[in-house]
Parts: sequence; structure tokens; C-alpha cells
Amino acid sequence: MSPSRPFALTPGEPAGIGPDLCLLLARRAQPQALIAIASRTLLAERAGQLGLDIALLDVGPGAWPSAPAPAGSLYVWDTPLAAPVTAGHLDARNGLYVLETLSRAGRGCLDGHFAGMITAPVHKGVINEAGIAFSGHTEFLAELTHTEQVVMMLATRGLRVALVTTHLPLKEVAAAITAERLTRVARILHADLVGKFGITRPRILVCGLNPHAGEGGHLGREEIEIIEPTLQRLRGEGLNLIGPLPADTLFTPKHLDQCDAVLAMYHDQGLPVLKYKGFGAAVNVTLGLPIVRTSVDHGTALDLAGTGRIDTGSLQVALETAYQMASPR
Amino acid sequence: MSPSRPFALTPGEPAGIGPDLCLLLARRAQPQALIAIASRTLLAERAGQLGLDIALLDVGPGAWPSAPAPAGSLYVWDTPLAAPVTAGHLDARNGLYVLETLSRAGRGCLDGHFAGMITAPVHKGVINEAGIAFSGHTEFLAELTHTEQVVMMLATRGLRVALVTTHLPLKEVAAAITAERLTRVARILHADLVGKFGITRPRILVCGLNPHAGEGGHLGREEIEIIEPTLQRLRGEGLNLIGPLPADTLFTPKHLDQCDAVLAMYHDQGLPVLKYKGFGAAVNVTLGLPIVRTSVDHGTALDLAGTGRIDTGSLQVALETAYQMASPR
Repeated sequence: MSPSRPFALTPGEPAGIGPDLCLLLARRAQPQALIAIASRTLLAERAGQLGLDIALLDVGPGAWPSAPAPAGSLYVWDTPLAAPVTAGHLDARNGLYVLETLSRAGRGCLDGHFAGMITAPVHKGVINEAGIAFSGHTEFLAELTHTEQVVMMLATRGLRVALVTTHLPLKEVAAAITAERLTRVARILHADLVGKFGITRPRILVCGLNPHAGEGGHLGREEIEIIEPTLQRLRGEGLNLIGPLPADTLFTPKHLDQCDAVLAMYHDQGLPVLKYKGFGAAVNVTLGLPIVRTSVDHGTALDLAGTGRIDTGSLQVALETAYQMASPR
Repeated sequence: MSPSRPFALTPGEPAGIGPDLCLLLARRAQPQALIAIASRTLLAERAGQLGLDIALLDVGPGAWPSAPAPAGSLYVWDTPLAAPVTAGHLDARNGLYVLETLSRAGRGCLDGHFAGMITAPVHKGVINEAGIAFSGHTEFLAELTHTEQVVMMLATRGLRVALVTTHLPLKEVAAAITAERLTRVARILHADLVGKFGITRPRILVCGLNPHAGEGGHLGREEIEIIEPTLQRLRGEGLNLIGPLPADTLFTPKHLDQCDAVLAMYHDQGLPVLKYKGFGAAVNVTLGLPIVRTSVDHGTALDLAGTGRIDTGSLQVALETAYQMASPR
């Protein structure tokens, strides 16, 4: 792995704050070469709207940069829009454009041109409106890289939370907690904490599914019938798993201070506390992929696009985390 | 309402840390008269074990105190044990004893002898082992006071979280979110924020049931079919309800700074962040009762009973909250 490979940065939904984030970031020199995969026209127009003087430096296949761009400039791999963009206004005609930027980034990582990719938010609804089946970055990249199981992990300074299930209606969650899924997710979490985060023997706290982790079977039996036996088998493989613990007492210093990650059973069990703690500085990491991919943890914020009243905190953490994950060990 | 009525304090499970908490508290003078409803023998023995010199002052029917006890003393309404207690060792023979202390406290509140009751933790399992159907303080007091619907709310400084459903297995939660239940719970929360907390027009943030509050129906339809129409009807009654909002972005300063309480759909959606924020200083409040009842937010901690290595922070908040709720308006 060469430390001089560039990272790909996808601004995502063109009417959202993604382009703004990339441009605001480019005011300062970055520690790594970063390539925005986006429409050059879009970036130039948005820079004008924001009153930013950013030099857009064209790069592309056969002409990849190896050194960071100077302050006030941004490498761009121009990717044409299908329709002009007005900040804040979704347009389904640009659905395929968004996917093309993601494909370019993902394939470039697979081909070894990029050291990793960092994504700004997309808008699932408008892509679906364009008649394209799309359920999110994570699923898209799993398919692109032929990865059967990926794991969504959110992180902020001092806390990492990975999820066994992600974007499922709540009523489907309990049935989705199977020994097989839990096994695959826990193995990926363990393997990537070792391989991509350099933690020698990661300690993982595992939430129960039910309130009070089932309270000995009184409040649900999945802990007894599925979670405990699965954790026990995985401990036999050398995974350092603690739990299942009640989610409402697990997120306290006594427990968190002694762990490298929390494995929550579902979205709203693990993410409210992570986003509370990491407000404005959390990163979404996709584990299990053969490539490095991190993302901001917020949405497209259409109402703020073009205003400049946004915070690059989450993008900064997403970048730092990607650099950390891609660094040679 | 007379400000000079005493408050009842139930130490709960005799082998747990409840007796210790009451004794540690009694080292200092309290702002209100507090009566421990417990075995005098138990308290005397535990005080000896802890090396505390606390004078136990007998009170009871016909002899209620109106002034706080001096520092170093505790009012006790002696309630006999069925079997001797060893700290840390559960004994099902004392199951009925625990219930008797709760009955005395609850009836005393109903009769107007007590201004409110504050409870230390009980151990459901050992009460059930004694052959008694018991699913918790809250349900017990609801039955005692003939209250059809109560609402569990946890609070810490700066955040209150009430729950639409409480101790249900996760797989039963979605079906339990009905228009009827949501209506009853929201009305009680609103009424008690007004009547017991003195908030003129409480602003309540309501979580969705599904991740991202269903994301327009893509991740579940309960928001569209049940929650939104119910909130809309309740707004017509004058309730100030905001939502349904995604739980993982609701618990951020932007939203929390402008609300008086959060209404979460289920236990592990709302309580991890509350306990993270309020670690060691959270209180459990039962809304909807005709009496004032607050509780510590932790368990019996059997392994710490008799050691003195415990923190009275949660009990202090439980007391302050009860005083606030009982104060005349």
C-alpha cells in the first residue's frame, strides 16, 4: 500500500450541502491528496454562490495526483450532470449522476487508484424517484464490491457503535437477530477493528435485544436462545465479547471506558447516544468491505445548501478516520 | 396541601443497597420530613455493618412527624421482616415484606398522610420466586391506586424522557404502539408536566417508532398510519407536540434545548441517552398516579450492599423531584 495514493471524496446529492462541504474544506491544505468526484460546473457554481475562491484542478484516469492540493484548491474528477442544479431543489434527472460518482469512487478503490473513499450525503428518495432501486451508500458499495455482509459502524471520539441490523422497520428487527447474522457481524467487527483500526485484541460490548437484556427471560428470550449461545461460540474463536448487557446501563463510563466498540442490535438502540455524545463530529464507517469507506453522519440538509452556514466537523472526522483505516500496518 | 406532611421512603429489597442509601442519606439533615418504611432491625444492623451512627426515631399511624429529622437520625415506620437479612443474599421469604412497605407508602399517600413516596430498588425475581405476581413498582402502585394508565418518565438535569411502552419484549413493541395508547400516554405526560411540574405549555418532542422515523414510509408505516394522525388530533386538544422525529437526531442540543420532555416509543430508544447524560443522577418518575412517586434509576446492586461504596446521587435527585412535584401551585 502506497501512502501517496489519493482519497476519493463524493459530494453526493448535488442540491444538498455535499458540494459546499467539499469547497469549504478546500480552503485549507489537507494532509492527503483528495479528489472530489463531481461535476466541475456544479462545484464552480456553488463556490460562486458561497463567495469562495477555490481553484478546481482537473484530474482523472491516467492523471492522478500524489501530493495534497495547495490551500484554496481542490482536485476534481469531472463527472457531468444530467440537468442543471439549483441548491436546495431536488431533481430526479440527476439520480444516475449521483450513482456514477459513487461507482467511480468505489471502482477506483477496488482498482487500487484510491486509498479509500469518503462520502457526503445522498438523497435516497430522489434516486428512487428516478426509477432506480437504491437503498443507500452502504448497500450500493456492498453490491459493487460483491460483498455479502457489511457492517455499519458510527464513531466519534471515545465511542464506536456497530449495528447488527440497520434500516429495518422496528417490527422486523427481532426476527432478523439470528445466530447467523450476529456471527457474521461480530466477526467482521472484530476483524476490521484489528485489521483497519490496529487494535490488537478488541473488547466489544454487546447489547441485548430486549429491555434489561431480557431480564433473565422475563422480557424476551432472544438473549437466552440466540445471543448468549452465539457469543459463547464466538468467544471460542478468540473474540473478546462482553454481554449481552442492558443497553440503558451499558452506555455509562464504567462500561465504555473498558471497551473498543459497542455492538447494538438495532439502529435506535445504539445511535441516539452516539450522536448525542458526538454531536457534529461523528463518522459513519462501513466495515466488511474490501475497500476503505467512511461517510459523514448527517443528511443532505437541503435548506442549508448554498448558505455556507454549515459545519465541516463530521466531514473532518470522516476524513481522519479514512486516513487512519488506510494507513499501513 | 400542607407543606409539613412527611414523605415516605421505601428502601425496597432488604438485601440490596436500598437500606444503605437511606442510612447514608440520614447523615445529613434533609429539607423535608422523611420516613423510612422498613424493618427497624434491618436498618440498625445495616448501620452497624456500615459503621454509621444513625438514631432511628420510631413513627407510625397517629404519630407522624412534621419537621425534618436532625442530622444523624432517621424516622422509621417499623415493618417486620419475615426472615433475617444478610446483605447481598436474596431470600424469597421476605417478598411479602417488601410489598407491605410499598402498600404502606402508597396507602399513606392516598390517605393524605404522606406528601409523596420515593422508592429504592426492589428485586422482581425474588418476589416472583415467593409465588407473588409482581412486575414492578409502577404496576403495583397503579393497581393499588386503581389507575388504568401510568407513564414511566426518567429525568436528569436538563432532560426528561417518557415512554409509550416500557417493559415489553422488543418484538411486541410495534403492535403496542396504538392510537389509543399513544393518546393516553401523551395526555398524561402533558397533564403532569403542567400539574406536577408547573410548566405552563410544555413542549414535547415525539420520537418515531422506526429508524429515521420511517423515512416517509420506506422504513415502516406506523408513523404515517398511527403516530402522525394521533399527534395531529392531540394538537387539536392543545398539546404542543413536535414530531415524529428520528430518535438518533432528536437527542441533540438543537432539539433538546427547545423542549420540556421527549416522548420515546420504547425503553431502549429513550433510556440509553438519558442514562448516559444523567449518569448517577437520574430519577424515575411515575406519571398519571393520583400520588407523587419517584424512584432511583438503578438496581439493587446486591454485590455492593453493606459495603458503603455507593453513591446517593440518584436518590438525591429522586427526593428533589418528589419535593418539586408535591409543592403547592
